[in-house]
Amino acid sequence: MFEEQIKPMQLEVCLSPSMFHNYAKKDSIAVVVDIFRASSAIATAFDNGVEKIIPVGTLDEAREYKNKGFLIAAERDGIVLDFADFGNSPYNFIGEHLEGKTIVYSTTNGTQAINSASVCEQVVIGAFINHSAVCNWLVQQKRDVIILCAGWKDRFSYEDSVYAGAMVETLIETGRFETICDSALATQDLWKLAKTDLMEYKEKFAHRHRLKRLKLDDVVEYCLSFDKIDVVPVFENSVITNINS
Amino acid sequence: MFEEQIKPMQLEVCLSPSMFHNYAKKDSIAVVVDIFRASSAIATAFDNGVEKIIPVGTLDEAREYKNKGFLIAAERDGIVLDFADFGNSPYNFIGEHLEGKTIVYSTTNGTQAINSASVCEQVVIGAFINHSAVCNWLVQQKRDVIILCAGWKDRFSYEDSVYAGAMVETLIETGRFETICDSALATQDLWKLAKTDLMEYKEKFAHRHRLKRLKLDDVVEYCLSFDKIDVVPVFENSVITNINS
Repeated sequence: MFEEQIKPMQLEVCLSPSMFHNYAKKDSIAVVVDIFRASSAIATAFDNGVEKIIPVGTLDEAREYKNKGFLIAAERDGIVLDFADFGNSPYNFIGEHLEGKTIVYSTTNGTQAINSASVCEQVVIGAFINHSAVCNWLVQQKRDVIILCAGWKDRFSYEDSVYAGAMVETLIETGRFETICDSALATQDLWKLAKTDLMEYKEKFAHRHRLKRLKLDDVVEYCLSFDKIDVVPVFENSVITNINS
Repeated sequence: MFEEQIKPMQLEVCLSPSMFHNYAKKDSIAVVVDIFRASSAIATAFDNGVEKIIPVGTLDEAREYKNKGFLIAAERDGIVLDFADFGNSPYNFIGEHLEGKTIVYSTTNGTQAINSASVCEQVVIGAFINHSAVCNWLVQQKRDVIILCAGWKDRFSYEDSVYAGAMVETLIETGRFETICDSALATQDLWKLAKTDLMEYKEKFAHRHRLKRLKLDDVVEYCLSFDKIDVVPVFENSVITNINS
């Protein structure tokens, strides 16, 4: 008997949506990462029984859905918008009242990143809190993977890049992925520095201070915790659902 | 006597020209970094007596200048173009015959980055080989600084980012600069990892391998050496000159 030779899949990291056109390949899977707070909030919502999330880029779209009676989660620069039912905190998406609901969702960076990523055939939402669930799913797909950091207004964001490095480490360790991508290797270096004391390292993150000023930093530690939940949110046909339910 | 209180200038790093519109401020100084090889080659040319360098983005522009009798340095993807007098290796720009010459210059990434940077009022070309000269000049200017990594085809590039981190370290150590920019802090982290053994660390860089395949890697060690030369190439009115001559 010959042992099956499995060719490793390629892994890349894109540090900002404004660079994504240089990384995107249609048949790759894009993993959208917006640690503070969209990808953490989306994962939490599904863990609380939300059935569908519809990400929309503009506030006009969100308002249209509001007029049609949908529940709306919407913020800009961390602040909940007046017409919205929720903001962008993962803690907004905890509770039995969310069971079976559809939520329309618009944030400063996260939902735009999801829409940018949708040039790829498959898009999944990744975060520390659902790390193993997403990594296990990615290994099963046998496709190349591009991790897209949502960033902050198209700029580099520390927490998204450090998490990308954690995902690179986990996926490379499976032996099913390999990378020659400079940014994948660089984020892995950042993760090596961060992981020995992530709670200390997070003090470097500009957005952690931005949230603190807005008194929205109660979720920071939660958003930086591994494997709180077991969901795999996949974006397909303009809607996010949890395919691990 | 009161001691003069000097407010530190702000320092930022932009990891790719495709993100620069989110960082650019007109009254900042942009430092363009393309270690392999444009910024290293430009610095070397001035050290060999070149009087002016005219960076042009497109090959059509370069051809027009050729027809007017100018010396042309032009490459794409590392390969010298047939109508050009030189390629992009710093070693092309060594010799007495360059004294007083004007060179028209077009490269895959570097010259485009210079043109992107020119939304800032002042643009300077930085590299390991002219590190102290540029840093000393920046300190004297008393302006905010944005280090722009040329990258590779609008993607993140390891060597440019690691050098950006070296420049962040030097400028912060002067006490005249401060930063709250995530990418400035992240490149500083990368530089901390790289600097203990840069010749070993460079093995991670994709472009170092690209140059090796093209047998153009004879300049890699030179391009990664500090303070070989003492020039400050500044881009103004569409022309680069050495203001340290």
